This record gives sequence, structure tokens and C-alpha cells, in this order.
Amino acid sequence: MDKSREKTFSFKLLSKDGSARAGLLSTPHGAVETPVFMPVGTQATVKSLTPAQLEELNVQILLSNTYHLYLRPGADVIQEFGGLHNFMNWHRPILTDSGGFQVFSLGNLRHVNDEGVVFKSHIDGSTHNFTPESAIMVQEKLGADIIMAFDECPEPHDRKYNEQALARTHQWAERCLKVKSRPDQALFGIVQGGIFSDLRARSAEFLTSLDFPGYSIGGLSVGESKEEMLAVIEVVTAILPEVKPRYLMGVGTPYDLIEGIRRGIDMFDCVLPTRNARNGALFTTHGPLAIKNACYAEDDRPVDERCTCYTCTHFTRAYLRHLFMAKELLAYRLNTIHNLHYYMGLMAGIREAIREDRFTAFRAVFSEQSHE
Amino acid sequence: MDKSREKTFSFKLLSKDGSARAGLLSTPHGAVETPVFMPVGTQATVKSLTPAQLEELNVQILLSNTYHLYLRPGADVIQEFGGLHNFMNWHRPILTDSGGFQVFSLGNLRHVNDEGVVFKSHIDGSTHNFTPESAIMVQEKLGADIIMAFDECPEPHDRKYNEQALARTHQWAERCLKVKSRPDQALFGIVQGGIFSDLRARSAEFLTSLDFPGYSIGGLSVGESKEEMLAVIEVVTAILPEVKPRYLMGVGTPYDLIEGIRRGIDMFDCVLPTRNARNGALFTTHGPLAIKNACYAEDDRPVDERCTCYTCTHFTRAYLRHLFMAKELLAYRLNTIHNLHYYMGLMAGIREAIREDRFTAFRAVFSEQSHE
Repeated sequence: MDKSREKTFSFKLLSKDGSARAGLLSTPHGAVETPVFMPVGTQATVKSLTPAQLEELNVQILLSNTYHLYLRPGADVIQEFGGLHNFMNWHRPILTDSGGFQVFSLGNLRHVNDEGVVFKSHIDGSTHNFTPESAIMVQEKLGADIIMAFDECPEPHDRKYNEQALARTHQWAERCLKVKSRPDQALFGIVQGGIFSDLRARSAEFLTSLDFPGYSIGGLSVGESKEEMLAVIEVVTAILPEVKPRYLMGVGTPYDLIEGIRRGIDMFDCVLPTRNARNGALFTTHGPLAIKNACYAEDDRPVDERCTCYTCTHFTRAYLRHLFMAKELLAYRLNTIHNLHYYMGLMAGIREAIREDRFTAFRAVFSEQSHE
Repeated sequence: MDKSREKTFSFKLLSKDGSARAGLLSTPHGAVETPVFMPVGTQATVKSLTPAQLEELNVQILLSNTYHLYLRPGADVIQEFGGLHNFMNWHRPILTDSGGFQVFSLGNLRHVNDEGVVFKSHIDGSTHNFTPESAIMVQEKLGADIIMAFDECPEPHDRKYNEQALARTHQWAERCLKVKSRPDQALFGIVQGGIFSDLRARSAEFLTSLDFPGYSIGGLSVGESKEEMLAVIEVVTAILPEVKPRYLMGVGTPYDLIEGIRRGIDMFDCVLPTRNARNGALFTTHGPLAIKNACYAEDDRPVDERCTCYTCTHFTRAYLRHLFMAKELLAYRLNTIHNLHYYMGLMAGIREAIREDRFTAFRAVFSEQSHE
């Protein structure tokens, strides 16, 4: 293990409550309390918000997408600006994905073989090529604190394809480790294997043997049932080393977060709070609220009477509905502030509950209030 | 004149420099230093900005559009919320237009006679009717500090039509005055008459005889030349009483503001800074800048090195270009902040120059720097 990396990246497990864990991730851009939810800043911006607002919302770490940044503005431009932190003026930690998930989402715009993936840009149709080596090189140019191995993300129910893809993902993980050169970035391995317990176990064991500083669980929230997802998490977290952080990629709803944490997950990312906000779907302590509904046209209450966010302390449901119906830009911002505040508050509450050994009670209250 | 109105609305001329004037407008929601530029909040929001941000930008007074608010969310809803100030949570002064300009912009979606205008909603095609009486009623429900008489806004070069329309606008001005009932709102008359000096003079004289607390100049910036516009302003301001504020509606560029102020205008509104921002056209002290230009792709300078706005102090041209090319919501916000900061700074500089008797020098420096 790289000595200089140890200086800049570490994970400390602070307390456990059942399988739920509270910990502290140290990175070159500061510490992150876990369990943590990472808002998604696909194109070097969390849609509609400034970095200052993200800090006000107590966002600890952002996720940004290698595929999108590679295509626009290009990794070289970002490198020239001293990396993603400087480019977007966000000086807390950042995690980048490897581009694998996005490339495999392109469907017939891509072709995969053992070497890597050839794909066509969704922006202009131009042809590009990602390999484990180039995915690491691009991520080194972007300069996030935590980077991801390049993996293959297949349909989760196809046994045969998942076996082949898993072999490739494991080879690619080794190739990623081999070419990684920046000591100030932590590279996570990604456990794959679809919904198949034995493949997932094999993957977790193999990657653990490679001694990554952290482990992601990929290939979930892509069409499988909640039961299948939770079963996979249980299999994998039972194998992954206690002392390393576990990151469940692309998940999820508040329910998913709580159930993931209950099974030992430390990190999450998802577009749900931000995308739902732009679609007018708001999270509240008593369940979801669709702001476009006519019943809110003259409702002088805030979205959530228990919420202390800027949106809820300054604007009524009637005004927010008006902005949304009129397709006003401010609607997307105010809704995003509210939804991220909800997610950040939920995670802070969970961390506190774990530290105080009352996560089970917290989960019960959450289920009751939100009717989930 | 209504005595109670005098208590809540007044205009004090503080100093003159040539024909340029610095003054203080007092309203129920606070004072406004003139000359003033009013950003446009068409649908009860200045697109992409919160009220808190507008205050940070030293916006003193907003304009909002009666036509749009009448259609959505409806004047009754806003009245129920205690008026526009409460509805949108902006507690500084507001001015509403009468809906006249918007209705006449609908082209063949409207029909005018002496009674008023029948028009079809641009949202759902439903039929509506504005009269001088209903335009005042709607504006009384909205509750702005300054409201406008209902006027007809014809094509500026058609002499015959302008004569007819002017007669109607004058009758309508009297009808507006007659039905106005709220003592806490100041009703401005609107001078019309196209590009015709005699019609403009007739209009200014007639409206002055009605003793409005302020006067607007309408029907400009609708297709006439700069020379025609400035000639009309000179004719009208020579007639309007010195002690009343003069508002040039829908104008304009930084050049227009300076030339209007030079001819005795006190108030302006225009979508230019905010709309241009959303189109990536930025104002700078050395002239306009189109952020999408390829030359900015790796430019690490701020939009304007002399600018102290949030955008310029936090982000590079390269990042702003990236956001704009990627159609990110944050692009519209950061550009809007910059352009409004430019307009607010320009107006503050002009006010200071007038008070210090150096407006002519200010104008010369502006022309040289911005190449206008």
C-alpha cells in the first residue's frame, strides 16, 4: 500500500449499532462523517446550486461523473485549472465514478471487449474509448479525493453475462490498481455480480484480496427488486473488511439509505433528491409531496412545517406551486434546496442515532412518520 | 389629490447636473434612490434569483407584470396572500405595469375598442377582458407601491393610429384615476404618442393637467430608432413637472440609461440584463462578452476583472462557459447575478456622479470604456 496515500486518506470506525456504522473518512480536502449521502454534480455542478449553498446545506462530499466531464469540458481543461475542486470552486471532498456505469447505460451506442469499451458520445456521436487505464488517467486529471475502478455493469438477472462481466471487472480492477499513480487519491474497488449471491461473494472476496482502501457495491438500483438489493448488500458487507468504507453506488430513496445503513453501508450517492426536486417531487418528514397538485394553489403553509431550510422558512406551498407551474428557474433551486436539506438532515439524524446506540428506534420512527 | 397617499408616496429632487436628476422616492415599502433601474420579475420572481440575492445586489425596487400575474396564479390568490410583497417574500418596493403593453403585444390574439381590450391568454387560449377599471382593480389586488394607468401602445410610426390611440389612452387615464381606491398606491400616468413630437407634447400636457404623482413614458423601445427615442424623451421631459418622477418604460441598454438620465429620466425597467444573462450575453466595463465563445474555454479570468460580484469573485470564464454550453441551471443564475450587479453598479455610479456634479465626465468615461 502506498505510504503517502495513507497520510491523506483514512477511515476510522467510531461506533457501531447492530450492523450500522458511524465513522470518519479523512481525505486531502477534509473529513467526512459517515454514513454520508453524496449529492450528484454530474457536470461539475449540483444542478441549480452554488458551492456556497452546498456548504450551507452541510454537504460534506460531492460526486461528479467522469463520463460527462471527459466529454465536456474535457479532462485536460479541468487538469489545467488544477483539477475539479478549483474548476468548480468546491473545496470539500469529491468522488468521481469511473465512467463505467454511464458508458454501459448507453446501450447500443457502445461495444465492450476485454480491452475496454468503445462508445459514442451522447452529445455529438463522436467515437471514444475507455479502458481501465484511461478511466484512471482521466480521473487522475480530474483530481477527485476518491476515484473508482473501471467496471462492467450488466443487467442484474442474466447469470451467464454476469459471470463473464465479473471476470472482466476483476481483471480491470487489477489493471486500475496497477496504473494508478497519484498518491493523494484513494481508489475504490467495485463489487459486481448482479443479483447472484455466490457471484457477489466471489467478487467481494477477490477485491478484498487486492486491498483497496474502500469498496463500492455497483450494479444495484438498476431494475432488481428491493429484496434482491438488500440481500446482495447483506452478502457483500458480511465479507468486506470492517475497517474499510463501503459505498453503495446510485442508491437511493430515504428508505434505501436507512436499510443500507442497517446492513453496514457507509456511503451513498443518488440523483433522486435533486432530480425529484426539478420534477416538483418534494421529500417531507410525513412522506412525499407533489407541489404541482391543485390543492396547494392557495396553501399558505411551508412544504414541511418541521423543516428549517431556506425554502421552508421563506416561501409557501402556493408560491412554490406557482413557480413550478410557471416553469420558473427559481422553482428548481428552491425545491433542490429543500430536498437536499431533507437528505442531509436525515443522514445527520442517522449518524447521531448510531453514535447514541438508538438506530433501531430511529428507523422505527422514520417508518411510521413517512409511511414507508 | 388623496391626502393619505401623500403620506406614503413622495418624490424629492435632491440635486441636478444639467438635466440629469438625483432624487429620493418614498413608498410604503421604503425609499428608492433615483435614477433607478428596476429589474423585471415577470411572474413574481426575477428569473433564477431569490429575494435575498436581489437585496444583496442592492436592488431597490422590482417591476412585476400584471398581465402574467392576472393569468397565473391569478390576482385573487395573490390578494389572499396579502399582496405581491408577501406572496413572493420581497419587502422592498414593487411597481406593476397595467397589462396594457403585454396585451397589445399579443397581436391578433386581442381586440381593442373604447371600452377596453378583449384578449386570449397565451397560456391556454381562454378569453379575457381588460378595461381601465379592471386593470386598476387587478393592480389593487396585487398591491404594488406604484401602479400604472391602462394605456394603448401602438406601432410608433403610424400617425393616424397614434392619434386615435392617444385619445383613448387619455380617456382611459381619467377612468383609471376615477376608480383608483387604495391610498397606499401611487398611480402613474403614461405618456404615449409614438414618434410624433406634437402628439407626445399633447399627451404630456394633458396628463400633467390630471396631476398624477408620477409620469411614465410608454411606447418606446418598440422599433423606433435611438434618435427618435431620445427626441421623444426630450420633448416629454421638457413638459413634465420637475417635482414628479419620470419613468421610461421598457428601456434599456446601459447607453440608453445614461442618455435617458441625461434627458431627465428617473426610473427605468428592462428585461435586458436578466434575459441577456440567460442567453450568455454578459455586460462588462469594457463592453459585451458572449460567454459561449470558444476563446473562453480555457480562460481563467473572471468575466470582468474589475467586477466584485459573486460570480466574478468565485468563477472563471472557462467554468461559466462550461456551465452555459452544458445548459446547466447554475449558468443562468451566475450570469444573472453578474449582469444585475453591473446594472446596479452603473446606476449607483451615475447617482453619485450627479450628486457630485460630474455626470458629463462620468458619461464620457463610460463611452470610452465600453466603446459605445
